[in-house]
Amino acid sequence: MTDSLALLQARLGYTFRDPAHLESALTHRSMGPTHNERLEFLGDSIVNFVVAEALFQKYGEAREGKLTRMRAALVRGQSLSELARRLQLGEALRLGSGERKSGGRRRDSILADAMEAVIGAIYLDGGMNACQTCIGAWFEADLDRVNPDQVEKDPKTALQEWLQRERHPLPSYVVMEVTGPAHQQAFRVHCVVDALAQVTEGTGMSRRDAEQVAAQRALELLQGG
Amino acid sequence: MTDSLALLQARLGYTFRDPAHLESALTHRSMGPTHNERLEFLGDSIVNFVVAEALFQKYGEAREGKLTRMRAALVRGQSLSELARRLQLGEALRLGSGERKSGGRRRDSILADAMEAVIGAIYLDGGMNACQTCIGAWFEADLDRVNPDQVEKDPKTALQEWLQRERHPLPSYVVMEVTGPAHQQAFRVHCVVDALAQVTEGTGMSRRDAEQVAAQRALELLQGG
Repeated sequence: MTDSLALLQARLGYTFRDPAHLESALTHRSMGPTHNERLEFLGDSIVNFVVAEALFQKYGEAREGKLTRMRAALVRGQSLSELARRLQLGEALRLGSGERKSGGRRRDSILADAMEAVIGAIYLDGGMNACQTCIGAWFEADLDRVNPDQVEKDPKTALQEWLQRERHPLPSYVVMEVTGPAHQQAFRVHCVVDALAQVTEGTGMSRRDAEQVAAQRALELLQGG
Repeated sequence: MTDSLALLQARLGYTFRDPAHLESALTHRSMGPTHNERLEFLGDSIVNFVVAEALFQKYGEAREGKLTRMRAALVRGQSLSELARRLQLGEALRLGSGERKSGGRRRDSILADAMEAVIGAIYLDGGMNACQTCIGAWFEADLDRVNPDQVEKDPKTALQEWLQRERHPLPSYVVMEVTGPAHQQAFRVHCVVDALAQVTEGTGMSRRDAEQVAAQRALELLQGG
């Protein structure tokens, strides 16, 4: 094992029984047919669970909507690329020459993906307990700092609360169209608000997401004038 | 504990050390302030991880895109409500009188949410291993049956492959607008395809989802004429 991998493991707070797991996680697809995308798929679901479970335990009074918003704030791509920077993951990445020359080591998406892959690798090497220990330590300050009352509300909730405050009737959402193959459907939704002269439209890969976009547009019309 | 809870546990294949966990999971929000929505939040992340891990192990050759499509097919709301029906979860639900009278026991969304909450309850009661055993057994046939080559491609992949087959240039995606609060941004994206006289538009709560909708519309124009 190279020195740089030994130093990275010290920063991660985890020593691999089989360093090949870590090496796979650090190998970008620009290196050839064997790369870290499968580990990224696995790691993505792990970090989602570990952060959800930590928030569930830590904020025993928070309702589902707040927990969802807190998790979204903690595990979005930007948080993961910041974590990768703190852990200096970029230095250890294995990139093809094109990516290396174009600054791939510093690119947010590559860093966030590799961070997820490293989490997948820790799972294969040491199981879920090892993941919970590592992720808990990396996100310790963030888990304390994320204030459930300061996390911004999603557009549907914000629209509902705005209309209630102004004593208007609540909005209704109508699915106008569903297209695409069965497991990849695209939704087009209208949001109907009595207080607005026009309906707003949103699309998305789930009905809920399409409604959020339509609600966001209604909110802008109501607030922005 | 009532007979109906004992029978449900036999169907689940899991006996709770503390049946209060199961009772919470079966309590819909129409029953009052203490209900199953927090457990649903927890269970959602668990079923996502358990199915991702099972697919990762079972389909060692499948690439990330295929794994993602297979998981989406297995854990979407409809699969969870079908599972809840097979396990006859509806009979044991605790609903407020309004929901009971309007047929809430048979409603897909209530069943899928309760299914996730039961998974969250099994985690609190018996840990991740218990969840993996249960979910593995419930989805056993589905995990075997889901054929990575038959899962339909997402619209962006399908569009790219269609254009390549027809020897047209690849599409480009342009973010036209980003609105909404920092952690709940709505994206509006254009898909530009040389072979089409018009651009198509999609919106979504992530850039990727907005691109999928725009790609789906381009594909329909190209194929449907």
